[in-house]
Amino acid sequence: MNAIRWQGDSLALLDQTKLPVEEVWEDYTDYRKVADAIRRLVVRGAPAIGIAAAYAVCLAAMELQCQDTAQFRAGMARAAKELAASRPTAVNLFWALDRMTLALSAGGGGPEAIPALVREAEAIHREDISMNRKIGKYGAELVPEGARILTHCNAGAIATGGFGTALGVVRAAHAAGGVEMVYCDETRPLLQGARLTAWELMRDGIPATLITDSMAASLMAQGKIDMVFLGCDRMARNGDFANKIGTYGVAVLAAYHGIPFYTVLPSSTIDMSIPDGKHIVIEERDPAEVTHFAGVQTAPEGIRVCNPAFDVTPHKLLTGIVTEKGVIHPPFGERLLELFG
Amino acid sequence: MNAIRWQGDSLALLDQTKLPVEEVWEDYTDYRKVADAIRRLVVRGAPAIGIAAAYAVCLAAMELQCQDTAQFRAGMARAAKELAASRPTAVNLFWALDRMTLALSAGGGGPEAIPALVREAEAIHREDISMNRKIGKYGAELVPEGARILTHCNAGAIATGGFGTALGVVRAAHAAGGVEMVYCDETRPLLQGARLTAWELMRDGIPATLITDSMAASLMAQGKIDMVFLGCDRMARNGDFANKIGTYGVAVLAAYHGIPFYTVLPSSTIDMSIPDGKHIVIEERDPAEVTHFAGVQTAPEGIRVCNPAFDVTPHKLLTGIVTEKGVIHPPFGERLLELFG
Repeated sequence: MNAIRWQGDSLALLDQTKLPVEEVWEDYTDYRKVADAIRRLVVRGAPAIGIAAAYAVCLAAMELQCQDTAQFRAGMARAAKELAASRPTAVNLFWALDRMTLALSAGGGGPEAIPALVREAEAIHREDISMNRKIGKYGAELVPEGARILTHCNAGAIATGGFGTALGVVRAAHAAGGVEMVYCDETRPLLQGARLTAWELMRDGIPATLITDSMAASLMAQGKIDMVFLGCDRMARNGDFANKIGTYGVAVLAAYHGIPFYTVLPSSTIDMSIPDGKHIVIEERDPAEVTHFAGVQTAPEGIRVCNPAFDVTPHKLLTGIVTEKGVIHPPFGERLLELFG
Repeated sequence: MNAIRWQGDSLALLDQTKLPVEEVWEDYTDYRKVADAIRRLVVRGAPAIGIAAAYAVCLAAMELQCQDTAQFRAGMARAAKELAASRPTAVNLFWALDRMTLALSAGGGGPEAIPALVREAEAIHREDISMNRKIGKYGAELVPEGARILTHCNAGAIATGGFGTALGVVRAAHAAGGVEMVYCDETRPLLQGARLTAWELMRDGIPATLITDSMAASLMAQGKIDMVFLGCDRMARNGDFANKIGTYGVAVLAAYHGIPFYTVLPSSTIDMSIPDGKHIVIEERDPAEVTHFAGVQTAPEGIRVCNPAFDVTPHKLLTGIVTEKGVIHPPFGERLLELFG
């Protein structure tokens, strides 16, 4: 299962805002429209955003190829800047754009670099899937047979190049015969759990139960959750991490109930340039995401709204970090530095 | 502000399923339709359910008044049974029906008791408002000036006879000049916080900010919440209590962050017949409440769903219980027995 396809001269994206009711693929040839698709969550999930942005850089180069060298370079710099501005929190976006900028320079800096740019974007995509498979293998070793797993938001195949991070662990554990039930938090306001995670799990025949975010605590108290796996949008070098709003609450609840709590990520999600979670920029989104649903008004006109897209979970609440290089246990700062520094 | 009006020969209810977009009052003369209105959450909130059921008993008596005595009594017993079956968790429903049954017997057991029944229902209604005022006064004494309060679901004027329990405390504290901000959890799946609490607060000019349920933890971590006040649907004699799903999670989060956590209730919500929360029946509601919103499908066809309407919070997570007789602090079992045993 995947949600991103490179087609040689265009990028096809599965429109995740229309799932699960409709499966609509759209073709993109304009990098600006890809930036807009990232902003509108047509494509979302830290790794998938990075991959889509990398292909968008290829689209920009194709659009600019008939310009003279100075104009080409200026245009490419502008495109990278516009793409970087599409979402502020997921670090993979900046990481992928940096890789593409290096590939452009290495390829000569002009239109002659286009084949090298495409190869680099395809490599970013391919490496992500390969990392997801490794992540799945390492994570599955943590899952006892018959485990009941809670997840929040969507860290699945469609949030990545394919297979998934947290859902990659679930997929690998299920293939090994280990999963009794996956509880999906619906993940307000945009319902990525209800719309996307539930859809991925049903398509793969993995037993899944949908709950509202506010039900997780009660299920934990009833002993129905054995472990939590969820994704990550940016991790600081001490292990603090930003993920979908609600993650921090799940972490506190898991700690209170003595339930192991893991975040699952490729190394491209680790931002070794920041010491801790206080340095992570949190995106504030449109209040209408909270006051309306699918065009239906659900709150009084004019009510004040908070709508941060992410929260920050301190590393002390983490049992472990699942990466393509293995599972990291505390002390995280030291071990992250060893593996990714 | 109120949502229940007795009109001599009919009961008018503000349809809370249509708020905040439309304010529609409906007249009821058939007690069965009142039972259905309770089931559909046209009227909701433990105290309001009790009051509506009491008036519904009056409607049943008026409908049955031309029957012979045996038929009248059988009909009244049937009506009480049907009304009791409308919602299983809120104890005020059974408490109000018991009071009406006693009033019926005391009034002669036949149609001649109708004026006594109406007086009793009006007394239940009036006493609830008067208790709410007292509750507000006691609760407001706990609120320091400039407090930032979190509430969950709706324990407001429209969940009671008028004024409100948890929102009664907020109203009284605001009148005394003490409230800087009320954060309203939207309260999935039926959004009573977004639709009803936000609406009540805006109408009363009390500063309010709407959040999704999953944002409460993050606001607590940022030091933006000073205290939590919320309602109660049934309390056992040790202080364990059932309230809207998500309450238990808020209680754990408040304890973790050292934030005072209070439930607010009239004594009719205390069920001294059960020793602890394990004996509280939890209503499981239609999965469509989670998979759909306002007719829009938000989850894949056929996904399994959990949809408990309530959870149980153990008394050890409570800082205090605000009642019309004052604020109760631990040890709850002892003090509840003193005041209400």
